[in-house]
Amino acid sequence: MSTRKPQLLKGFRDYTPDQMRLRLRVISIFRTVFERHGFEPLDTPALEYMETLTGKAGENEKLMYHFLDQGDREVGLRYDLTVPLARYYAMHQQESVIPFKRYQIAPVWRAEKPQRGRFREFWQCDADIVGSPSMLADAEAVSVLTDALDAVNLGQAVVSINHRKLLEAMARLAGVPEARTGVVFRAIDKLGKIGLEGVKRELTGSGVEEQSADRMVEFVTQTGSNQELLAAAELELEAIPGGTEAVSELRQLAGYIDDLGVPSASWKIDLSLARGIDYYTGPVFEALIEEPKIGAVAGAGRYDDLVGSFIGRPVPATGMALGLERIVEVIDEFDLLPEVATVADLFVAVFQDSLRESAQIANELRGAGLNTDLSMLANRSLGDQMKYAARRSIPFAVIAGADELRRGVALIRNLANGEQREVERVLLVQEARIAVSG
Amino acid sequence: MSTRKPQLLKGFRDYTPDQMRLRLRVISIFRTVFERHGFEPLDTPALEYMETLTGKAGENEKLMYHFLDQGDREVGLRYDLTVPLARYYAMHQQESVIPFKRYQIAPVWRAEKPQRGRFREFWQCDADIVGSPSMLADAEAVSVLTDALDAVNLGQAVVSINHRKLLEAMARLAGVPEARTGVVFRAIDKLGKIGLEGVKRELTGSGVEEQSADRMVEFVTQTGSNQELLAAAELELEAIPGGTEAVSELRQLAGYIDDLGVPSASWKIDLSLARGIDYYTGPVFEALIEEPKIGAVAGAGRYDDLVGSFIGRPVPATGMALGLERIVEVIDEFDLLPEVATVADLFVAVFQDSLRESAQIANELRGAGLNTDLSMLANRSLGDQMKYAARRSIPFAVIAGADELRRGVALIRNLANGEQREVERVLLVQEARIAVSG
Repeated sequence: MSTRKPQLLKGFRDYTPDQMRLRLRVISIFRTVFERHGFEPLDTPALEYMETLTGKAGENEKLMYHFLDQGDREVGLRYDLTVPLARYYAMHQQESVIPFKRYQIAPVWRAEKPQRGRFREFWQCDADIVGSPSMLADAEAVSVLTDALDAVNLGQAVVSINHRKLLEAMARLAGVPEARTGVVFRAIDKLGKIGLEGVKRELTGSGVEEQSADRMVEFVTQTGSNQELLAAAELELEAIPGGTEAVSELRQLAGYIDDLGVPSASWKIDLSLARGIDYYTGPVFEALIEEPKIGAVAGAGRYDDLVGSFIGRPVPATGMALGLERIVEVIDEFDLLPEVATVADLFVAVFQDSLRESAQIANELRGAGLNTDLSMLANRSLGDQMKYAARRSIPFAVIAGADELRRGVALIRNLANGEQREVERVLLVQEARIAVSG
Repeated sequence: MSTRKPQLLKGFRDYTPDQMRLRLRVISIFRTVFERHGFEPLDTPALEYMETLTGKAGENEKLMYHFLDQGDREVGLRYDLTVPLARYYAMHQQESVIPFKRYQIAPVWRAEKPQRGRFREFWQCDADIVGSPSMLADAEAVSVLTDALDAVNLGQAVVSINHRKLLEAMARLAGVPEARTGVVFRAIDKLGKIGLEGVKRELTGSGVEEQSADRMVEFVTQTGSNQELLAAAELELEAIPGGTEAVSELRQLAGYIDDLGVPSASWKIDLSLARGIDYYTGPVFEALIEEPKIGAVAGAGRYDDLVGSFIGRPVPATGMALGLERIVEVIDEFDLLPEVATVADLFVAVFQDSLRESAQIANELRGAGLNTDLSMLANRSLGDQMKYAARRSIPFAVIAGADELRRGVALIRNLANGEQREVERVLLVQEARIAVSG
């Protein structure tokens, strides 16, 4: 009879009910935080024209799922939520209120090699502001990011902050040709993974002079307080176009982040932060959790040219993206949110000769706002039904067989400790509510 | 500077913030109703092996988005949420509690010709019960369906109910060869669209004898009360294998639907209901709204062989699917839910010389649970900032410029009527909360 093999594609997964209850809780918390900051919800299609998705995304094309559709159009599954936002804004600028603040919580797809904790389908939670050149918008992105992490008890995360123009100016100073700037960003982005020597090798391997590579690495690995790092960068880059401007923007951003109440322990200047994606043009952010050793859980930055690639004139934009998969994994592993073992508050047993009454009881309990699982095990013993309810971790069962019904009562059984109480049938809903809210 | 044309694929759409607020509200209501009935949440990947998606889905393969992925696997975007559920169950039966009740709210994709109100990407809201052969499970599906529609003020919907085995028995009686049964279901499914003569033409065109086609059509277009229709079917089909069983299951189902408190005006037996998809094996349902003339908003039925196609032994299953797109469209068109014009409760204006104070105010308001949009228009006049807030329909603005701050006050302006009140700075959060909840 079996004609299909039940299997999942590598890098894809199911979310079981246990996982989904937690995911939905985290999504709901992020949604609340985004709306608390005045971001409006948005959604865009999973499939877009490949022409929409590529463009400036550079080396990412080979990591996309793409194909010819029935109408011979080259289409792809979205790779992130930022490019679709830029495309949306270009199509809806007339009706949008500017600055346009939106959030989007949705899956994206990347045809990457799956690794532990890295999937081909994963959810991102983005909040962006399109239309504001102000560092206040970047500060708002950092603020909503730290608030979101704090709301799921990941307040120990630290947001690293750098500026693309600062790295660009340094690359000029170190003698890296302008055409190699993207190479520099991508190489430095791998610092944590491949180390100092790895970055140097990657730079020289991509045609950057050894001396330039050394100088770049030396610059980005400086340590010190935020003030010290910015002062050092200012001194070093004062003659380079864009350098002073970048330092001054970072200073302004730092002030606004303070003003928005972000604790000083929650962020720091990190000259080695590059971010791999091509489209960033200003401040870049990345939230890391060091203790426990989790790594990056969120990131993003300013991308003033991306919307322009659709619209033909520059439109400033900035924002941030939380990676749902890793965050949920950490919350689960370290029990950071209370576990909810089932959606159901109550289980109602059924009996062949009084099934109608059990259905009516379930209907009444649901009407009173209680999540009620009516037994589907009409032909099974009460013991079997209780086993089912216990396996689902439903906290209470309502039992009203022929005997109880004749006496005008019902039983409420606490499935955790086996205790049960007889209550008057007419008071059942009221008593059940008390038990559940107990 | 523009290098990409901003465009959407035909049959796909963006959901603007106005649309998303309503969609999220409806999804939240459906989720609440599903959990009220004890269904647990589940999610599965958008992409599956084509072998998983096809099989019994019959003529649907050509309507799927499918392609060879980077590993030369034939993959497709899910066409519905029922086949992935069957695949999930086959892979997770050990850890699942049976009967397994799950809901899934997610997009599906069909490469169909787009029409008014029909999209290539659309969301379904499914609730299913796997592992119960009882008509109580089918009644639960009808009950959760009518409760969900009622919860979004579409209580006038009527659920048509029929039984696949009843149509099969009638096809045998009418002399339709067994190999043509699928043709009969698909032809009758189009009755509403192509009419009596259309169905007859489609049947005869597919190799069904004219006399058989006539008799089929005559049978399915009978009218009468539920009791009358079931009695007529019983009489006509008593000699046909499966016929009596189908009638008896429908009688049992009708009783359970009553027991679960579904109003008698919310459902009816309709012998012409067939449903197009191949995998149904028992009762089938479809919710229609006649007034206003909207058509089908939900459907489904029992599919006892689908899970078996993955697992090698029969596993009974039944459920229902609400079509989110049409439901949201109707709610929007007829104002069935209160409109919410923005997520933001308050707008906080900013001033160049006291930006820090405005940011602090926003931070305090957010901390108090008020959704607060901090102005990003740092270089713009107060008038411009108020225009932005009004365009976003934010109900209240908080204004605290240098003058107000010096006097230890702030202004709360009602943007609907222009009235404003001066409140003490230290009481601002408290006063804002009163204004917003007022």
